[in-house]
Amino acid sequence: MASLPRPLSGIVPPMVTPLHDRDELDAAGLERLLEHVLAGGVSGLFVLGTTGEAASLGYRLRYELVQRVSEQVAGRVPVLVGITDTAFVESVRLAAHAADSGAQAVVLSSPYYHTVAQPELCEYLQHIVPELPLPVFLYNMPSLTKVPFALETLRRAMDLPQVIGIKDSSGDMGYFHQVGRLLAERPEWSLLIGPEDLLADAVLLAGAHGGVNGGANLVPRLYVELYEAAARRDLARVAELHGRVVRIVGTLYAVGHHGSAVIKGLKCALSLMGICDDFMAEPFRRFRAPEREAVRRHLLDLGLVS
Amino acid sequence: MASLPRPLSGIVPPMVTPLHDRDELDAAGLERLLEHVLAGGVSGLFVLGTTGEAASLGYRLRYELVQRVSEQVAGRVPVLVGITDTAFVESVRLAAHAADSGAQAVVLSSPYYHTVAQPELCEYLQHIVPELPLPVFLYNMPSLTKVPFALETLRRAMDLPQVIGIKDSSGDMGYFHQVGRLLAERPEWSLLIGPEDLLADAVLLAGAHGGVNGGANLVPRLYVELYEAAARRDLARVAELHGRVVRIVGTLYAVGHHGSAVIKGLKCALSLMGICDDFMAEPFRRFRAPEREAVRRHLLDLGLVS
Amino acid sequence: MASLPRPLSGIVPPMVTPLHDRDELDAAGLERLLEHVLAGGVSGLFVLGTTGEAASLGYRLRYELVQRVSEQVAGRVPVLVGITDTAFVESVRLAAHAADSGAQAVVLSSPYYHTVAQPELCEYLQHIVPELPLPVFLYNMPSLTKVPFALETLRRAMDLPQVIGIKDSSGDMGYFHQVGRLLAERPEWSLLIGPEDLLADAVLLAGAHGGVNGGANLVPRLYVELYEAAARRDLARVAELHGRVVRIVGTLYAVGHHGSAVIKGLKCALSLMGICDDFMAEPFRRFRAPEREAVRRHLLDLGLVS
Amino acid sequence: MASLPRPLSGIVPPMVTPLHDRDELDAAGLERLLEHVLAGGVSGLFVLGTTGEAASLGYRLRYELVQRVSEQVAGRVPVLVGITDTAFVESVRLAAHAADSGAQAVVLSSPYYHTVAQPELCEYLQHIVPELPLPVFLYNMPSLTKVPFALETLRRAMDLPQVIGIKDSSGDMGYFHQVGRLLAERPEWSLLIGPEDLLADAVLLAGAHGGVNGGANLVPRLYVELYEAAARRDLARVAELHGRVVRIVGTLYAVGHHGSAVIKGLKCALSLMGICDDFMAEPFRRFRAPEREAVRRHLLDLGLVS
Repeated sequence: MASLPRPLSGIVPPMVTPLHDRDELDAAGLERLLEHVLAGGVSGLFVLGTTGEAASLGYRLRYELVQRVSEQVAGRVPVLVGITDTAFVESVRLAAHAADSGAQAVVLSSPYYHTVAQPELCEYLQHIVPELPLPVFLYNMPSLTKVPFALETLRRAMDLPQVIGIKDSSGDMGYFHQVGRLLAERPEWSLLIGPEDLLADAVLLAGAHGGVNGGANLVPRLYVELYEAAARRDLARVAELHGRVVRIVGTLYAVGHHGSAVIKGLKCALSLMGICDDFMAEPFRRFRAPEREAVRRHLLDLGLVS
Repeated sequence: MASLPRPLSGIVPPMVTPLHDRDELDAAGLERLLEHVLAGGVSGLFVLGTTGEAASLGYRLRYELVQRVSEQVAGRVPVLVGITDTAFVESVRLAAHAADSGAQAVVLSSPYYHTVAQPELCEYLQHIVPELPLPVFLYNMPSLTKVPFALETLRRAMDLPQVIGIKDSSGDMGYFHQVGRLLAERPEWSLLIGPEDLLADAVLLAGAHGGVNGGANLVPRLYVELYEAAARRDLARVAELHGRVVRIVGTLYAVGHHGSAVIKGLKCALSLMGICDDFMAEPFRRFRAPEREAVRRHLLDLGLVS
Repeated sequence: MASLPRPLSGIVPPMVTPLHDRDELDAAGLERLLEHVLAGGVSGLFVLGTTGEAASLGYRLRYELVQRVSEQVAGRVPVLVGITDTAFVESVRLAAHAADSGAQAVVLSSPYYHTVAQPELCEYLQHIVPELPLPVFLYNMPSLTKVPFALETLRRAMDLPQVIGIKDSSGDMGYFHQVGRLLAERPEWSLLIGPEDLLADAVLLAGAHGGVNGGANLVPRLYVELYEAAARRDLARVAELHGRVVRIVGTLYAVGHHGSAVIKGLKCALSLMGICDDFMAEPFRRFRAPEREAVRRHLLDLGLVS
Repeated sequence: MASLPRPLSGIVPPMVTPLHDRDELDAAGLERLLEHVLAGGVSGLFVLGTTGEAASLGYRLRYELVQRVSEQVAGRVPVLVGITDTAFVESVRLAAHAADSGAQAVVLSSPYYHTVAQPELCEYLQHIVPELPLPVFLYNMPSLTKVPFALETLRRAMDLPQVIGIKDSSGDMGYFHQVGRLLAERPEWSLLIGPEDLLADAVLLAGAHGGVNGGANLVPRLYVELYEAAARRDLARVAELHGRVVRIVGTLYAVGHHGSAVIKGLKCALSLMGICDDFMAEPFRRFRAPEREAVRRHLLDLGLVS
């Protein structure tokens, strides 16, 4: 079984969930995707995150996915499992399944239907963390959960020994720098950044240990190399690789008009690269032909297909 | 089995879920609450809504609740079951269980983790509604789901024969009046209002058929009488009863500082009235002593306890 | 000079500002508009509000407008002048000019560039109100100022003897009912509602004394009659007139896609009715031909042009 | 007269406006502040920005300030004047005054009372820019104006020859990186960042030419050195100086609870350092004793007072 480095560093892709239908995994696509990503040198895998459409998947399929990924990864890298849920008991149940399947950690955001206040969020963490059988990464995703982890809440979560890191997908680098300052007291915590165009900033300047970046599904090597260049302070190389990432974000993720553009673009690109199906669980739907054609052109320009 | 009037009119309380623990129903409290509410003359029951903390409950408990409520109600009034979920397949599965348990309709809001755009929401409805075995009420709750049912989306949903009504909890009476105007073409649809302080406006002026009002857990008779007075255009009586409702909202629901104040206030009051336990599933927590004392004082002032 | 009834009741149109150019009044159009509106039986005039594009007008023109309106109205009804500004001293200066010109009251919202917190808003009111030479209406417009007048802030403003009323344009009837409950202690305060589709609700059920409704620029008689029917509790007549208002809102104000649709629709309609120019000060611009044609069709359907 | 480098690079402090009263400059404090800032090696001065409380100041005082600053600076560095206004004609009038006073450029955000849509914002720029007698920096400040400069709007503004740069205070580094990518086509445009904790990121990784950072009122040398270290790619020095900036943001700007904390903290600190009065124009108010004491302690810890 993979050990979980403390802190975990490098690139931990938030894995896309290949689907044939809303309740049917694309099992062959999943295998190809896992090997594609692992071959890129990633440090771990995060399944059942936002990019993995976790909330859109039925529980049966979520459990199956965790099982399959754990088996196929077989300890080559740590597997982190998203257990964010509106229901406490479902989070705990999924965490138990993750532990049983051999995963190394769970990832937990705020419950997201009701809008919780920060004191309520603190109490929630104090209640749930001790019931989880694996180490916990907090996941700050206020644009979707409506609720951030305020700095004061993080400060209090630092007293929970099972919490070992935070993934911040707020896109707010001001916040991220303050988190970095706060975590100076917890050298064994991992500080990971979600938005891939902020990876270089985060590692170079905020003490981040790596990224949980959607694009690493597609071109894992690019993100791994960017992380490594940033970690060794090779600014010229960072600039070059960061420029490629910014171009991916400004093209591949900007097809279509809705908030769903990033995941749709990723899945469509993976499909065009022959890695997996681009079926999406409701409420989303794969790109139609015109958007698919736009994604293909971007991939060509980026040199990712030929 | 209860028949489902078309349109359904009157008061349909969004039932509080009595709990002893986060995964344990307060079964005796549930029985008392049901009889208390039914004795008040309500026209139906809505279980697993926002007030019922549906999103915070594990699926096992949700299924048990639907079963118990259906059995105890035993056809005296229609039972509506909230099936809103981030996962399509869980909504469909719960709807099947609702049908099997003898419920009369399901209630469906927008999926609420990912932020869907209106064209995506339209497609979602076109996909899911035909898979549901019961008539469907749409549930507009943008403050929590992040996504309203835009008028154009409603217009398109009117072509789905299984959809038979809408419950609007947006609190936006301008929107509600336009919905009322739109639904003039669908006399068999029910137009129901969520916020109880808007019940009188909605029935008197916007063609609403009734309300799904949290306070009807507590004093069902008050809301039923207010609805009836509004339906028969008895303005003097409406003014008196509406004044009481506005006072409840301005006192009982204004204890505590967070968005959770309404549900906490309701559960606390039900507990003080001896009806059911006030345990709340995470991420919320029942009121502590000072808030409980404030609720008690308000109940005294309102003449609801002695 | 017009006296200012306490409370002021009835319809007080938020007057459109007829323009020939961004810094040039359409003086003849202004005269026609004023007589058109006064002939409709309104109870007062509110100049330099949101509908009047106040914030988009240079100060010279604002002063000229106040002067011209006061002169032409000549005491037939009270004139209320919007003095909301980001700069304290400009509000005070405009208020002095309003008093000099013979206006009867000023209307004040929250300063709207910086985002003020409620304690800051309270202090602001305590500082500015004593410096104003006329009675003050508060103006709740959070969608544009970013800051509401919280109930607690209103409660504290009730201690400022110069404040004599509130115009609420939040569109939040739940809030409005609580304001109505609060103002039961201040029978001489005017409670006025902004959104015209909420006028009937507000007067029938929330104790409102009238409305500051944009549509009253166009068809003042309709709004006056609706107010009067509501005030005398003539529900059948209210239903009929309210239905017309809801139809105006759902058609005339729904041309074009932006937040500016209401003012653009109003000005375009006034132009089509031959009352005044539809020039708009930047950042807006009058409707082009296709939108103008849509407005014309709606006016025809509504029987407002032939 | 100062020439305006193209692109302008380095630190351009958004100058605090020293006041004795809401309509009275602290003239001596202004002189001290200017010399303090200029001695720090800044590349320009931006007066009448958000930090300068521009919107809260009467026009007479704004004009006086521009005049005084221009005279005292006397061409040592370029002076940029904020002309953002809700009223087109007031922006143009202030721009003319800025030109007459010898300023080198104006800074323009979106009009901020009415909420403009992007096509309206594009047209606004096309109308106003040609009427301005000085080069124009766009100023992206969506948290206060409610409206961002969307990338497509920027792309269209690049065709306006008078526009020579953009200051982005959105705090959204994802957006900033895309702006940087866009501006690769306009090497003579200045790309400046507002939030000081993002200065290092912006210069190192996004091609920014410098910062418009509030803290440069206080310790101009720190920001100038940070900019210079970033520009010469001295990562070790950047890390050290950036850490100090992050600490300032996390302490000095975190006293008090409201959105006004940054400006209040800055003015209070300047007062404690003996540079200028901390009077604030409404709707804000200087810190009281407890907050002032907290600021003093932070300044001590930061080594900025002794």
